[in-house]
Amino acid sequence: MPRYKLTIEYDGTPFLGWQMQADGRTVQGVLAEAIAAFCGEDVMPSGAGRTDAGVHALGQVAHIDLTKDWPADTVRDALNAHLRPDPIAVIAAEPVDNNFDARFSATARHYRYLIVARRAPLALMRDRAWLVPVPLDAVAMAEAAQVLVGNHDFTTFRAAACQAKSPVKTLDQLTVADTGEAIIVEASARSFLHHQVRSMVGALKAVGEGKWTRADVADALAARDRARCAPMAPACGLYLVKVDY
Amino acid sequence: MPRYKLTIEYDGTPFLGWQMQADGRTVQGVLAEAIAAFCGEDVMPSGAGRTDAGVHALGQVAHIDLTKDWPADTVRDALNAHLRPDPIAVIAAEPVDNNFDARFSATARHYRYLIVARRAPLALMRDRAWLVPVPLDAVAMAEAAQVLVGNHDFTTFRAAACQAKSPVKTLDQLTVADTGEAIIVEASARSFLHHQVRSMVGALKAVGEGKWTRADVADALAARDRARCAPMAPACGLYLVKVDY
Repeated sequence: MPRYKLTIEYDGTPFLGWQMQADGRTVQGVLAEAIAAFCGEDVMPSGAGRTDAGVHALGQVAHIDLTKDWPADTVRDALNAHLRPDPIAVIAAEPVDNNFDARFSATARHYRYLIVARRAPLALMRDRAWLVPVPLDAVAMAEAAQVLVGNHDFTTFRAAACQAKSPVKTLDQLTVADTGEAIIVEASARSFLHHQVRSMVGALKAVGEGKWTRADVADALAARDRARCAPMAPACGLYLVKVDY
Repeated sequence: MPRYKLTIEYDGTPFLGWQMQADGRTVQGVLAEAIAAFCGEDVMPSGAGRTDAGVHALGQVAHIDLTKDWPADTVRDALNAHLRPDPIAVIAAEPVDNNFDARFSATARHYRYLIVARRAPLALMRDRAWLVPVPLDAVAMAEAAQVLVGNHDFTTFRAAACQAKSPVKTLDQLTVADTGEAIIVEASARSFLHHQVRSMVGALKAVGEGKWTRADVADALAARDRARCAPMAPACGLYLVKVDY
């Protein structure tokens, strides 16, 4: 069966996350409906990462197997036609080898987190960024972020319900930049634990407002204790930007 | 009467533009309603620029005169409370001298225009960027943009209904950059003619797709003829970013 790699953008706001659920609309479920509407096949797209409810994607990746050998651009355009008016778009469809697996073939995942630090509510970035009503020291956040880069036991920074076998991961990059319009946190790794990015951003926000120091982040990491994590950042500021293969 | 300078962000999508109208909701009208709800005064905010229907603002500026001398932060917070749930936010309120006029005191206006060049529909940037379904050459666009910088008669690039006395304006900056996620056009001038930015972006898009050359832009400018303009860019990609005083 021909396999296709789909690169997918979505606004996560109206969905209960990526993964199919019995009791609500998910990105995976809506994609499966579009595939069925396009070619009549019952196919569940297999994604690179299970984004939570409200988390966005600029470049989620999924693979699907179809019976018929459609031109890839036809797959892209037909799915987009059937996805309307949902805020999900198939940016690219490409034929791939049957060894390609969106989840297991991934060599790196890149996430972005947006924070707007101001008193006023968000007009243009509503549901697209974390509104923090106090000033944040982005330089202190950037310095503290370096504590987390490298190979560590991230137990403090993963959800209690995380199903990964090991809490040890290698964080390749964690940068913080202030553009004036937003504070942008960028995180890259081969893979992440459940809630890892939002947990790390929660700790960096505590540093930014002066409640935590760089040493507090190091202590929390070393403690390997979920209870030592700062309050987690909300889903709405998180974007799955790109998956490398 | 105490005068306040308001810096305002809005998502232009649900509004018929900035300026008050009898037959629909406008940013100016909704702000006037919020002022009345806050302090009972009938005040029409005076804006730096009249954005069209669907045009957004990160930093529109308006001034208002109130009878009572409120703390500026109270004005900001109270207006934001009354603006909910409309996508309009007062980012800052500052007391200013009575000589300050949001429109006439402005020394520069900065606009941004976002283009996404791809086949797939927009999910995250829907109503926030111009979707162009063909590849665009951003380098050619950036070169052609330089033709428009400087002091020129912009008759070709202004709306037939433009009420400015003179079509001669000085365009201080017109840059084009491709971030990979979007093509960003930035335009700065003391003031712009009606539809000038969208008309210039329309011409640059024609250059980007290879329909126009840099020389065609120069010829269109020299013609001083509205009929020589390329199709105008849509409102949804335009942002009033900042006004200098």
